Amino acid sequence: MQAPFSSVAVFGPGLLGGSIARSIREHMPNCDLRLWARRTEPLEMAKQMGITEKTYTDPIDAARGAELIILATPIAIFEDLSRRMLPAIDRSAIVTDVGSVKAYVHRTTGDTLTERGRIFIGSHPMAGTEKQGLEHSSATLLQGATVALTNPHRAAANQVERLAAFWQALGCSTYLMDPTNHDQTVARISHMPHILAALCARGAVAGKTPMKDLQRLAASGFRDTTRVCEGPANMWADILWENDVAVRSVLADCIRDLHHLSDLLENQDRQGVLKWLEEARAARKEVRQS
Amino acid sequence: MQAPFSSVAVFGPGLLGGSIARSIREHMPNCDLRLWARRTEPLEMAKQMGITEKTYTDPIDAARGAELIILATPIAIFEDLSRRMLPAIDRSAIVTDVGSVKAYVHRTTGDTLTERGRIFIGSHPMAGTEKQGLEHSSATLLQGATVALTNPHRAAANQVERLAAFWQALGCSTYLMDPTNHDQTVARISHMPHILAALCARGAVAGKTPMKDLQRLAASGFRDTTRVCEGPANMWADILWENDVAVRSVLADCIRDLHHLSDLLENQDRQGVLKWLEEARAARKEVRQS
Repeated sequence: MQAPFSSVAVFGPGLLGGSIARSIREHMPNCDLRLWARRTEPLEMAKQMGITEKTYTDPIDAARGAELIILATPIAIFEDLSRRMLPAIDRSAIVTDVGSVKAYVHRTTGDTLTERGRIFIGSHPMAGTEKQGLEHSSATLLQGATVALTNPHRAAANQVERLAAFWQALGCSTYLMDPTNHDQTVARISHMPHILAALCARGAVAGKTPMKDLQRLAASGFRDTTRVCEGPANMWADILWENDVAVRSVLADCIRDLHHLSDLLENQDRQGVLKWLEEARAARKEVRQS
Repeated sequence: MQAPFSSVAVFGPGLLGGSIARSIREHMPNCDLRLWARRTEPLEMAKQMGITEKTYTDPIDAARGAELIILATPIAIFEDLSRRMLPAIDRSAIVTDVGSVKAYVHRTTGDTLTERGRIFIGSHPMAGTEKQGLEHSSATLLQGATVALTNPHRAAANQVERLAAFWQALGCSTYLMDPTNHDQTVARISHMPHILAALCARGAVAGKTPMKDLQRLAASGFRDTTRVCEGPANMWADILWENDVAVRSVLADCIRDLHHLSDLLENQDRQGVLKWLEEARAARKEVRQS
């Protein structure tokens, strides 16, 4: 099969950007793959790992002639970066991103690029770990992941199909969504798990329980429920920030539901507690289709 | 090494009781191992699995002559079961349990037994999965687990040491605790993870987000953060119920902390959100000593 793009520039070879680059190297060996980073260290590492020799700290050089440009830096710098490389972005090139929120990205970066005649389509690969950096990236991270695609700027259908074909060639499935619906969905299925994992870790140490007792009794339940909160705090602060309306709505739901459980316990409503727990099991099974 | 007990009766061969029985079979091959269950099905399964031929539905028969009696049924039936087997419990035998709360167990079963001249020491192996039943048990479940021991009824030191030696022979480490301190600690390190996992699953489906969107975008963060809430709802309703004072105190902490995060987002305090997330990471690292 012909690769959908003969040249791809990945901006920000961290965990996700690095995994995309390694996956391109594996699935599209003839692709002209470029990496851009602000610092040279990750670029040197990428060379040593055999990902590509084409590395850049100048965004213009990295973007020039690329058929696909992937923004994988922190979301907060997407727009500035896009402005800087604008003269080098071909009008037939597709620019996408891998940010965890989409309405904000389209409102900023998407507007900036499309108002200047460039093509911008949003992507959000639902893949990650609590680890950070190129050193933890892997070509398998994307295997089987869903990539949400967002196209409020109405790029042509064949462009969306071309971008979808790219993700599919890396082993992903794609799913076209409205950006606002995307953001509300990830608030519940991704941002809320992160917040509750963090809440769980914070709550463990919030009482008067001696640390050595917590350490001795912590088992797999604590480990797994809190795992994701080891993810990069800076990135997650951006995500919560940029999706704050949807996130606050979910927080309000959580607070209401915890009050409900507390009332059930206070009112000695054992059947109510059981129902609360059974509804949770059923919800998880339904979401995970198991 | 001589096994600490030459005969052990396990009451309730479910996930944990079954794992203990299989571990005894492996580590103490000469032990006279008995299993009691209310129904014959798990006992037949235990025979087929080669765990033991000595299976009983009469508690008196199972307990008679046993040097160690382990209560691994639902906590709610410990006391009734103890009363029924009381005449068969030797005065030199040790009775223990594997319940997830300890103050309640000592206040009920512990009092009942010790007032009648029997020895009762509490145990809580910090090991489990979201699975249920003997069919999911395994000898490795206990490997490396901490077992909290509670002795408010002041059994003699050599009896506590003998029980500790038993758990250690199965690959566990032991940790003597005050029952109230135990219950407050597990409220934070075990019961709270379960509640927040359940809250996360409930919250996913609580909004107007279409189920198919949640299903498509659910990834490893949702999977791991919610994993434990697939555990048996009945058992967990008992646990929350029997530890309700400590649990409600933790719920109040969670509600307060979610309000705090919501306020930080509403007040556009990005540094505050970052600090909230960084404190969570630090808390998890400290508890897990990593």
